[in-house]
Amino acid sequence: MTALTDVLETVTERVTPTADERKRLAAAVAALTARAETAIDERGVDADVIQVGSTARGTWLAGDRDIDLFVRFQPELPRAELERLGLEIGHAVLPNGHEEYAEHPYVNGMFDGFAVDLVPCYRVDSARKIRSAVDRTPFHSQYLAARLDDDLAAEVRCFKQFCKAIGTYGSDLRTEGFSGYLTELLVLEYDGFEPLCRAAADWQPPVRLDPEDHGKRRFSNPLVVVDPTDPERNVAAVASTENVARLQHFARDLLATPREALFVRPDAPTADEREIRRHLTRRETTVIALVFETPDIVDDQLYPQLRKSRVGIENGLESHGFDVFRSTAFADDERSVLLFELSVATRPAVERHEGPPVSVREHAAGFVAAYTDDDTVYGPFLDGDRYVVERQREFTDAREFVDDDRLLDVGLGKRVATTLNDDYSVLVDDDIAALSERFGRELAAYFTPDLRG
Amino acid sequence: MTALTDVLETVTERVTPTADERKRLAAAVAALTARAETAIDERGVDADVIQVGSTARGTWLAGDRDIDLFVRFQPELPRAELERLGLEIGHAVLPNGHEEYAEHPYVNGMFDGFAVDLVPCYRVDSARKIRSAVDRTPFHSQYLAARLDDDLAAEVRCFKQFCKAIGTYGSDLRTEGFSGYLTELLVLEYDGFEPLCRAAADWQPPVRLDPEDHGKRRFSNPLVVVDPTDPERNVAAVASTENVARLQHFARDLLATPREALFVRPDAPTADEREIRRHLTRRETTVIALVFETPDIVDDQLYPQLRKSRVGIENGLESHGFDVFRSTAFADDERSVLLFELSVATRPAVERHEGPPVSVREHAAGFVAAYTDDDTVYGPFLDGDRYVVERQREFTDAREFVDDDRLLDVGLGKRVATTLNDDYSVLVDDDIAALSERFGRELAAYFTPDLRG
Repeated sequence: MTALTDVLETVTERVTPTADERKRLAAAVAALTARAETAIDERGVDADVIQVGSTARGTWLAGDRDIDLFVRFQPELPRAELERLGLEIGHAVLPNGHEEYAEHPYVNGMFDGFAVDLVPCYRVDSARKIRSAVDRTPFHSQYLAARLDDDLAAEVRCFKQFCKAIGTYGSDLRTEGFSGYLTELLVLEYDGFEPLCRAAADWQPPVRLDPEDHGKRRFSNPLVVVDPTDPERNVAAVASTENVARLQHFARDLLATPREALFVRPDAPTADEREIRRHLTRRETTVIALVFETPDIVDDQLYPQLRKSRVGIENGLESHGFDVFRSTAFADDERSVLLFELSVATRPAVERHEGPPVSVREHAAGFVAAYTDDDTVYGPFLDGDRYVVERQREFTDAREFVDDDRLLDVGLGKRVATTLNDDYSVLVDDDIAALSERFGRELAAYFTPDLRG
Repeated sequence: MTALTDVLETVTERVTPTADERKRLAAAVAALTARAETAIDERGVDADVIQVGSTARGTWLAGDRDIDLFVRFQPELPRAELERLGLEIGHAVLPNGHEEYAEHPYVNGMFDGFAVDLVPCYRVDSARKIRSAVDRTPFHSQYLAARLDDDLAAEVRCFKQFCKAIGTYGSDLRTEGFSGYLTELLVLEYDGFEPLCRAAADWQPPVRLDPEDHGKRRFSNPLVVVDPTDPERNVAAVASTENVARLQHFARDLLATPREALFVRPDAPTADEREIRRHLTRRETTVIALVFETPDIVDDQLYPQLRKSRVGIENGLESHGFDVFRSTAFADDERSVLLFELSVATRPAVERHEGPPVSVREHAAGFVAAYTDDDTVYGPFLDGDRYVVERQREFTDAREFVDDDRLLDVGLGKRVATTLNDDYSVLVDDDIAALSERFGRELAAYFTPDLRG
């Protein structure tokens, strides 16, 4: 067994950018900043340029090649002007760049092998006065820059690499994990990677951390880290229950058996048709997949909508008596899939329908009147103190339900609803194996689930 | 529509014994009493003879031919002596009689067309000092005889006939309905049949009545009528929730639409093989029947044991994932049947097995250690804050469960357990139609349930 310190030493070595890497990055940042300042001057606007993100704070991982430059305008500048000038300056800095859209449009492009985001924002007095979410970022950078020394930056890199390896890194709404800023705050709060692991191993969620001790608002998330630059904000708001649990699990695993493997993301396995059929045969469940064109929206909209749709259809299936064993949703740019594995896919023609207790006289009269002499039901009869009838079930096969218009009433994500309303196809059991060509990894992850995200 | 008073008049006429019937009964009672007194005198014991039951109180229904005579001995008499003398005197009074057994043995036999019970008991000072349950009966008779005049006796007869017609009459443990004594107390309490119906129509169970206002003990039954002769006893202890609800339902029905039909027990329909198969086809459920030799015990032991066994097996089926839609139990002297109608009779090969929440560190470690590297399970993986594995299900078909020795562990009635341990057969779906020859009525009652008991 290797001691944790040995493991961390090896990992640190691997994830620390080389001196050459740093030099090249610094040179690129200097050149880009100069270009941006020139573009600002040429337009005679009041603005400055600030580097943010992990490459600004010295916490990026070897091989990462992201540079984030923010152009900060005065808050008096109208928003339309900010957007226009931001893009102009962006294109001036990155002639081959293209426009992307977060809260404002911004320019993204390559420079000397680095992926550069050039983002316009407002220069406000404090993070509480921000006019859009990006305005907050410079405050985060300033807060951390003042507190992370080289040693702590190394610990941050270890923790980021650990989160990547176990699948909890990323605050996008597909991952629902930990942002870079969050990983840095956690390492800072516990003063190092190992003490963070020891603490996380014993967390009893909900866990609330408040580095500046200024938070008043209550949050309902499993992990709360009150933003040091904004007492109203939980930096960990996106982190799912599962990802918090995952960090706890692997923190314990690492402490119990320190090993480098926990800092390496395994190659994602992929499942071919034969493998999928083998699982279906072994499991004896019924699998139903809805396949449809992926709505043309960004991932941070798409994945929450897929999730909502999955839960909605799952509830719809359950409410009709079809027990969902497990389910998943996945997508690429063209096709989306909502997959439901059922432990009960058929029900008999009759269903029990309970009436009121006999003692509730007015409801009792209505129920009996409604069903007496109704040839389509069995009963009414008494079970304990209640009236009961056995009536015709609406759907006796889960396939009927997913083929029915009723499917659209279950509470779907908005753009998923419009897409399904247009068209979707349904695959059942062995037919889903055909999805392996496009979604072999997603299906492998579903059929061989493990503890990593 | 016929007014309720008209209906009751007609019913009263029908259920009141004729003068001739009364005369023959009185003559029979006189002759039997004389015989019993002679037998007592011949043995030189200190005892008297008392007539009890509905024929003593003038509340029997026309056509009923039961005479209950109690021989009351002094409390000092040892129990063995009481039993010996009781049987001797019984045989002397009823030379063709045979012995039966309640709390004591007693003699039952025919006399002049009447079914006579000759029961020994102790003559105690008060119902609180009884030495066995039968000692209480004379106190009941005395209490009612002092309070029921001819008019109220007529109302009692209407109520008894009503209870018989709707299936709530009888305090045996098969029916779990209302005893004769209870029907009399209820009519007395509400001062007539119609006011009783009006009250019952509005009951909000649990309902507590205490005619002598002397009860202190709390009971958990839906209907409590504190025995006027014993504050510790609920006369309605046997009445099931269903039978109380049934009385409420039909009381309302009668008040809403007075009609004689509610005082007539319809002929029980019977279902033949074709009819049963028709229901099975229509319902699409899976029916499993366990058939076994009826244990040689009295009905008041048999039916509670069948009920307990039915509930136990139902719970066993449910705990293995097989959803029971409805179930029943029935028996004749030779064969007993526990019948389960399932809405889910098969399950896939895998079942979800939830582990502890990740935050419970010591349990978490044990769960993960137990299942990691276990090729027979899927996982462990995380679902929310919990560990989950998908493991092999023990029974994938309900038939496997009822064929397995495990069936005997579910909490069966004692004698049902020993019988099933010896032997039982299992019928599934259409094969149960063969039961129609012996149990056509029970199956008709099951497959065409209505509000009567």
